[in-house]
Amino acid sequence: MNYILKNENAIYYECGYSNDNCIFLSIEGDRYLFTDGRYTIEAREGLKKGEVVIDRDIISQVVEMIKKYHPKTITFDPKEWSVYAFHKLSQIDGVKFEPQEDFSHKRRMIKSAEEIKLIKRAATLGMDAFDKFSDFIMNEGAGLDEYRLKHKAKSILSYDGLYELSFDPIVALGANAAKPHAMPTDHLLSEGELLLIDAGLKYQGYCSDRTRVVQVASQMDFALDQNFSSPTFQKAYDTVLKAHDTAIQGARSGMKAKEVDALARDIITHAGFGEYFVHGTGHGVGLDIHEMPYISQKSEAIIEDGMVFTIEPGIYIPDEFGIRIEDMVVMKNGRADIL
Amino acid sequence: MNYILKNENAIYYECGYSNDNCIFLSIEGDRYLFTDGRYTIEAREGLKKGEVVIDRDIISQVVEMIKKYHPKTITFDPKEWSVYAFHKLSQIDGVKFEPQEDFSHKRRMIKSAEEIKLIKRAATLGMDAFDKFSDFIMNEGAGLDEYRLKHKAKSILSYDGLYELSFDPIVALGANAAKPHAMPTDHLLSEGELLLIDAGLKYQGYCSDRTRVVQVASQMDFALDQNFSSPTFQKAYDTVLKAHDTAIQGARSGMKAKEVDALARDIITHAGFGEYFVHGTGHGVGLDIHEMPYISQKSEAIIEDGMVFTIEPGIYIPDEFGIRIEDMVVMKNGRADIL
Repeated sequence: MNYILKNENAIYYECGYSNDNCIFLSIEGDRYLFTDGRYTIEAREGLKKGEVVIDRDIISQVVEMIKKYHPKTITFDPKEWSVYAFHKLSQIDGVKFEPQEDFSHKRRMIKSAEEIKLIKRAATLGMDAFDKFSDFIMNEGAGLDEYRLKHKAKSILSYDGLYELSFDPIVALGANAAKPHAMPTDHLLSEGELLLIDAGLKYQGYCSDRTRVVQVASQMDFALDQNFSSPTFQKAYDTVLKAHDTAIQGARSGMKAKEVDALARDIITHAGFGEYFVHGTGHGVGLDIHEMPYISQKSEAIIEDGMVFTIEPGIYIPDEFGIRIEDMVVMKNGRADIL
Repeated sequence: MNYILKNENAIYYECGYSNDNCIFLSIEGDRYLFTDGRYTIEAREGLKKGEVVIDRDIISQVVEMIKKYHPKTITFDPKEWSVYAFHKLSQIDGVKFEPQEDFSHKRRMIKSAEEIKLIKRAATLGMDAFDKFSDFIMNEGAGLDEYRLKHKAKSILSYDGLYELSFDPIVALGANAAKPHAMPTDHLLSEGELLLIDAGLKYQGYCSDRTRVVQVASQMDFALDQNFSSPTFQKAYDTVLKAHDTAIQGARSGMKAKEVDALARDIITHAGFGEYFVHGTGHGVGLDIHEMPYISQKSEAIIEDGMVFTIEPGIYIPDEFGIRIEDMVVMKNGRADIL
């Protein structure tokens, strides 16, 4: 099977190297990485098996290479290619480009033992960073706004720049957490405040992802069991935690993803908060922070051993509060292990 | 003229608001912003003139709206749309989607007085941050590796998280600076070392961009005039500085961009370093860090008052050293003013 990749992580998965301007071509068993002169040294060192082709105009080089082999078909992912780039690529007489959505994500859905080790390491580093962030808030957090809190979270999560982050983290206080994708504001942290953090880092390319909610206090941590002064909030928190635990304990290989979603969603619905759980229960994690399988109400995907995904139910009451509790799990011997 | 935009900055320029999942449609004089429920509040507050449409499946909503108006043609930028998204968009009988490359970038090429003020502010904040970074290196830089130096540069440039960065900054020591897009290594900073920093920040969406090279010393700053202990390096640095100054002093509205490139390139070529100046002399800057006009050997673009672009000649000797000196200019009364 011949295929062509343009996405940075898709290429990294395939050949152990990639950058922000490269194309990978697998054609009649031969493998080529096309990139530009800025990356000559790294590409030659990094590529596992195959040949590096360096040029300013990489698409033209790709087209020339395809003409040389002149295969009948080449598979590509229509989500990876712009209309502009694909138009330049696809004008080759007699070669058919076959669209396959999520081509690379499908190949990456079941993680190898080695990949699970790297994700586990990312998750452990992430958890340790959460502990450090909690220490920081107890000792120095009072009076800082969300911009500075977020920036400090980024410093700690990245171990002062040593690791890249999985995504731009969310650090939200009080009612701002009611927006699932809250942007920072100049709201200042004070004791008694509710704080939500959703953050992760990358270890050798693989992402971690975790969310916790706490009430800021002189003694606090990011454990799952939390006490809140507001009974309304406590009730909602305990509901989300029960949904989180139920989905993790109940998930089995062979289930449909929507059945895993239902394990969490039913708890929240029965507690009367159903309309405030406005997103899916989880998503796959790997080189990308959002991968397959998606754990949502409509997902027919079959859960299998080796899949890694988040369980992250939430309740969001507009202008009041937001709660989300998130952990990553790996399916192993038919059950979900927390990473 | 009807047009549709998908790029985040293209949409922000058009209507004063955007996010990572929205589409803007201008059709028969009406204006619509389509986004999902996470952004309802911000979109309604941010949109200047027009109507916000909220839905989980924004492309379907866009298609329905276009069907309602049923225009003959709609202009789009083929670089903004994936093959996948465009396919969903473009299946409307009787409506022709006309590709226009860089549609938004062309509209944004001449900056308004207000935009120039914002860019100037970004540049000033960026320059002040360079000063702080130089203080940091003098006082605390010794013994840190490039990862930590880069992370500290990001902290300082972002004013501890208050501003977003224009791009992931480059902080490279010694021979690593010979790669125009150097990635950090565990190389440790010590006195006498050559250090290159290329960095900028965003002020109200508008980017700054600046590059300096220094030899680390107990007294140092990021001024243009620099002294180096190596005569070879000093010669190359002075050549790049002369190229930088010559291009800025010689640029005139009405010139072709390639003529501005030649002002810098000729100095470097005549000094015998021509083959080591491996990129264009500059690029436009605005909401995007790379915009039109491109100041390159082949660019036929005509320079006009109101354009903002970088002048950043360089010399890169593989495995030895890299030099780049970069400032932003705005064309005003026919000449280039440094920002």
